[in-house]
Amino acid sequence: MKAIVLFAHGARDPRWAAPFERLQKLTQDALPEVAVRLSFLEFMSPALPALVAELAQQGCQQISVVPVFLGQGGHVLRDLPLILDSLRADYPAIQFRHSGAVGEDAGVLMAMRDYCVTQI
Amino acid sequence: MKAIVLFAHGARDPRWAAPFERLQKLTQDALPEVAVRLSFLEFMSPALPALVAELAQQGCQQISVVPVFLGQGGHVLRDLPLILDSLRADYPAIQFRHSGAVGEDAGVLMAMRDYCVTQI
Repeated sequence: MKAIVLFAHGARDPRWAAPFERLQKLTQDALPEVAVRLSFLEFMSPALPALVAELAQQGCQQISVVPVFLGQGGHVLRDLPLILDSLRADYPAIQFRHSGAVGEDAGVLMAMRDYCVTQI
Repeated sequence: MKAIVLFAHGARDPRWAAPFERLQKLTQDALPEVAVRLSFLEFMSPALPALVAELAQQGCQQISVVPVFLGQGGHVLRDLPLILDSLRADYPAIQFRHSGAVGEDAGVLMAMRDYCVTQI
Protein backbone atom coordinates (compact mmCIF):
# COMPACT_ATOMS: atom_id res chain seq x y z
CA MET A 1 0.00 0.00 0.00
CA LYS A 2 1.24 3.47 -0.99
CA ALA A 3 0.19 6.84 0.40
CA ILE A 4 0.38 10.48 -0.65
CA VAL A 5 0.26 12.90 2.26
CA LEU A 6 -0.75 16.46 1.42
CA PHE A 7 1.11 18.39 4.08
CA ALA A 8 -0.27 21.87 4.80
CA HIS A 9 0.35 24.58 7.37
CA GLY A 10 -2.98 24.58 9.23
CA ALA A 11 -4.84 27.59 10.66
CA ARG A 12 -7.15 28.48 13.54
CA ASP A 13 -10.12 29.17 11.24
CA PRO A 14 -11.71 25.89 10.08
CA ARG A 15 -12.78 27.55 6.80
CA TRP A 16 -9.09 27.72 5.88
CA ALA A 17 -9.00 23.96 5.23
CA ALA A 18 -11.65 23.96 2.47
CA PRO A 19 -9.37 24.03 -0.62
CA PHE A 20 -7.04 21.45 0.95
CA GLU A 21 -10.00 19.12 1.51
CA ARG A 22 -11.06 19.61 -2.12
CA LEU A 23 -7.48 18.92 -3.25
CA GLN A 24 -7.41 15.73 -1.19
CA LYS A 25 -10.65 14.53 -2.77
CA LEU A 26 -9.56 15.40 -6.33
CA THR A 27 -6.22 13.63 -5.84
CA GLN A 28 -7.87 10.62 -4.24
CA ASP A 29 -10.36 10.39 -7.13
CA ALA A 30 -7.45 10.42 -9.60
CA LEU A 31 -5.51 7.74 -7.66
CA PRO A 32 -8.05 5.28 -6.24
CA GLU A 33 -5.38 2.68 -5.43
CA VAL A 34 -3.38 5.12 -3.27
CA ALA A 35 -4.27 6.38 0.22
CA VAL A 36 -4.39 10.18 -0.17
CA ARG A 37 -4.43 11.91 3.21
CA LEU A 38 -4.16 15.43 4.64
CA SER A 39 -1.78 16.37 7.45
CA PHE A 40 -1.01 19.70 9.12
CA LEU A 41 2.01 21.32 10.73
CA GLU A 42 0.00 23.18 13.35
CA PHE A 43 -3.51 24.20 14.52
CA MET A 44 -5.22 21.33 12.66
CA SER A 45 -4.93 17.56 12.86
CA PRO A 46 -3.66 14.99 12.14
CA ALA A 47 -0.03 15.93 12.60
CA LEU A 48 2.40 13.99 10.42
CA PRO A 49 3.65 11.57 13.15
CA ALA A 50 0.09 10.58 14.13
CA LEU A 51 -0.91 10.05 10.51
CA VAL A 52 2.22 7.99 9.75
CA ALA A 53 1.55 5.80 12.80
CA GLU A 54 -1.91 5.09 11.41
CA LEU A 55 -0.62 4.41 7.89
CA ALA A 56 2.11 2.11 9.29
CA GLN A 57 -0.52 0.14 11.17
CA GLN A 58 -2.41 -0.27 7.89
CA GLY A 59 0.72 -1.77 6.28
CA CYS A 60 1.77 1.24 4.23
CA GLN A 61 5.18 0.73 2.59
CA GLN A 62 5.73 4.03 0.80
CA ILE A 63 4.69 7.53 1.83
CA SER A 64 5.14 10.54 -0.49
CA VAL A 65 4.79 13.85 1.30
CA VAL A 66 3.74 16.81 -0.85
CA PRO A 67 4.06 20.21 0.83
CA VAL A 68 0.90 22.15 -0.07
CA PHE A 69 2.59 25.48 0.51
CA LEU A 70 3.04 28.34 -1.95
CA GLY A 71 6.52 29.41 -0.81
CA GLN A 72 9.37 27.34 0.58
CA GLY A 73 10.45 28.96 3.84
CA GLY A 74 11.36 27.53 7.22
CA HIS A 75 8.37 25.19 7.40
CA VAL A 76 9.20 23.37 4.17
CA LEU A 77 12.99 23.70 4.17
CA ARG A 78 13.70 23.10 7.87
CA ASP A 79 10.67 21.82 9.86
CA LEU A 80 9.48 19.16 7.39
CA PRO A 81 12.92 17.54 6.78
CA LEU A 82 13.43 17.29 10.57
CA ILE A 83 10.03 15.59 11.01
CA LEU A 84 10.85 13.21 8.13
CA ASP A 85 14.29 12.36 9.60
CA SER A 86 12.59 11.39 12.83
CA LEU A 87 9.93 9.33 11.01
CA ARG A 88 12.56 7.51 8.94
CA ALA A 89 14.29 6.51 12.18
CA ASP A 90 11.00 5.37 13.75
CA TYR A 91 9.71 3.47 10.68
CA PRO A 92 12.71 1.94 8.86
CA ALA A 93 10.42 -0.37 6.82
CA ILE A 94 8.59 2.57 5.22
CA GLN A 95 10.07 4.40 2.25
CA PHE A 96 9.56 8.14 2.69
CA ARG A 97 9.77 10.62 -0.20
CA HIS A 98 9.05 14.29 -0.34
CA SER A 99 8.62 16.74 -3.18
CA GLY A 100 8.94 20.49 -3.55
CA ALA A 101 6.15 22.86 -2.54
CA VAL A 102 3.17 22.97 -4.92
CA GLY A 103 3.73 26.72 -5.37
CA GLU A 104 7.09 26.01 -7.04
CA ASP A 105 5.42 23.94 -9.79
CA ALA A 106 5.29 25.64 -13.20
CA GLY A 107 1.73 24.47 -13.90
CA VAL A 108 0.46 25.80 -10.57
CA LEU A 109 2.25 29.07 -11.19
CA MET A 110 0.65 29.48 -14.63
CA ALA A 111 -2.81 28.71 -13.19
CA MET A 112 -2.26 31.39 -10.52
CA ARG A 113 -1.13 33.82 -13.25
CA ASP A 114 -4.33 33.04 -15.23
CA TYR A 115 -6.40 33.80 -12.13
CA CYS A 116 -4.56 37.03 -11.31
CA VAL A 117 -4.85 38.53 -14.79
CA THR A 118 -8.66 38.26 -14.68
CA GLN A 119 -8.86 40.27 -11.45
CA ILE A 120 -8.25 43.71 -12.96
CA MET B 1 -3.59 54.03 -14.05
CA LYS B 2 -4.73 50.68 -12.63
CA ALA B 3 -2.85 48.32 -10.33
CA ILE B 4 -3.05 44.68 -9.28
CA VAL B 5 -1.52 43.99 -5.89
CA LEU B 6 -0.55 40.39 -5.20
CA PHE B 7 -0.96 40.21 -1.45
CA ALA B 8 0.96 37.40 0.26
CA HIS B 9 1.72 36.39 3.83
CA GLY B 10 5.48 36.92 3.94
CA ALA B 11 8.09 34.82 5.79
CA ARG B 12 11.42 35.20 7.54
CA ASP B 13 13.29 33.15 4.91
CA PRO B 14 13.91 35.27 1.78
CA ARG B 15 13.77 32.10 -0.38
CA TRP B 16 10.06 31.90 0.44
CA ALA B 17 9.31 34.85 -1.86
CA ALA B 18 10.63 33.22 -5.06
CA PRO B 19 7.33 31.89 -6.51
CA PHE B 20 5.55 35.14 -5.63
CA GLU B 21 8.21 37.11 -7.50
CA ARG B 22 7.78 34.81 -10.51
CA LEU B 23 4.00 35.25 -10.31
CA GLN B 24 4.41 39.03 -10.22
CA LYS B 25 6.61 38.94 -13.33
CA LEU B 26 4.30 36.56 -15.24
CA THR B 27 1.26 38.68 -14.40
CA GLN B 28 3.06 41.91 -15.29
CA ASP B 29 4.16 40.44 -18.65
CA ALA B 30 0.52 39.52 -19.38
CA LEU B 31 -0.77 42.99 -18.42
CA PRO B 32 1.85 45.53 -19.53
CA GLU B 33 -0.55 48.49 -19.10
CA VAL B 34 -1.24 47.64 -15.43
CA ALA B 35 1.09 48.15 -12.45
CA VAL B 36 1.47 44.66 -10.95
CA ARG B 37 3.02 44.78 -7.49
CA LEU B 38 3.74 42.48 -4.56
CA SER B 39 2.80 43.30 -0.97
CA PHE B 40 3.12 41.31 2.26
CA LEU B 41 1.19 41.01 5.50
CA GLU B 42 4.28 40.47 7.66
CA PHE B 43 8.04 39.77 7.66
CA MET B 44 8.54 41.18 4.12
CA SER B 45 7.94 44.56 2.57
CA PRO B 46 6.22 46.56 1.25
CA ALA B 47 3.19 46.38 3.52
CA LEU B 48 -0.10 47.26 1.83
CA PRO B 49 -0.42 50.82 3.27
CA ALA B 50 3.11 51.76 2.13
CA LEU B 51 2.51 50.35 -1.35
CA VAL B 52 -0.86 52.09 -1.69
CA ALA B 53 0.73 55.41 -0.64
CA GLU B 54 3.25 54.98 -3.46
CA LEU B 55 0.59 53.99 -6.01
CA ALA B 56 -1.59 56.96 -4.96
CA GLN B 57 1.34 59.31 -5.52
CA GLN B 58 1.71 57.85 -9.01
CA GLY B 59 -1.95 58.71 -9.76
CA CYS B 60 -3.38 55.21 -9.47
CA GLN B 61 -7.20 55.23 -9.61
CA GLN B 62 -8.05 51.55 -9.18
CA ILE B 63 -6.30 48.90 -7.09
CA SER B 64 -7.31 45.23 -7.24
CA VAL B 65 -5.92 43.19 -4.36
CA VAL B 66 -5.49 39.46 -5.02
CA PRO B 67 -4.74 37.37 -1.91
CA VAL B 68 -2.01 34.91 -2.93
CA PHE B 69 -2.95 32.49 -0.18
CA LEU B 70 -4.02 28.86 -0.51
CA GLY B 71 -6.62 28.88 2.27
CA GLN B 72 -8.89 31.65 3.46
CA GLY B 73 -8.42 31.98 7.22
CA GLY B 74 -8.06 34.95 9.53
CA HIS B 75 -5.50 36.74 7.33
CA VAL B 76 -7.74 36.82 4.25
CA LEU B 77 -11.17 36.96 5.93
CA ARG B 78 -10.40 39.37 8.79
CA ASP B 79 -6.99 41.12 8.51
CA LEU B 80 -7.19 42.07 4.82
CA PRO B 81 -10.75 43.56 4.93
CA LEU B 82 -9.72 45.67 7.95
CA ILE B 83 -6.65 47.00 6.11
CA LEU B 84 -8.80 47.73 3.04
CA ASP B 85 -11.43 49.56 5.12
CA SER B 86 -8.71 51.79 6.49
CA LEU B 87 -7.23 52.40 3.02
CA ARG B 88 -10.66 53.26 1.56
CA ALA B 89 -11.06 55.89 4.29
CA ASP B 90 -7.56 57.29 3.65
CA TYR B 91 -7.80 57.29 -0.18
CA PRO B 92 -11.43 58.05 -1.16
CA ALA B 93 -10.40 58.80 -4.77
CA ILE B 94 -9.06 55.28 -5.33
CA GLN B 95 -11.39 52.41 -6.14
CA PHE B 96 -10.34 49.32 -4.18
CA ARG B 97 -11.41 45.79 -5.12
CA HIS B 98 -10.40 42.47 -3.75
CA SER B 99 -10.87 38.92 -4.93
CA GLY B 100 -10.89 35.51 -3.24
CA ALA B 101 -7.70 33.66 -2.41
CA VAL B 102 -5.92 32.08 -5.39
CA GLY B 103 -6.20 28.67 -3.70
CA GLU B 104 -9.99 28.84 -4.00
CA ASP B 105 -9.79 29.11 -7.81
CA ALA B 106 -10.85 25.96 -9.67
CA GLY B 107 -8.02 26.23 -12.20
CA VAL B 108 -5.39 26.57 -9.48
CA LEU B 109 -6.91 23.62 -7.64
CA MET B 110 -6.78 21.43 -10.76
CA ALA B 111 -3.14 22.42 -11.38
CA MET B 112 -2.30 21.45 -7.79
CA ARG B 113 -4.11 18.15 -8.27
CA ASP B 114 -2.09 17.51 -11.46
CA TYR B 115 1.12 18.15 -9.49
CA CYS B 116 0.11 15.95 -6.55
CA VAL B 117 -0.84 12.90 -8.65
CA THR B 118 2.65 12.79 -10.20
CA GLN B 119 4.35 12.61 -6.80
CA ILE B 120 3.57 8.95 -6.07
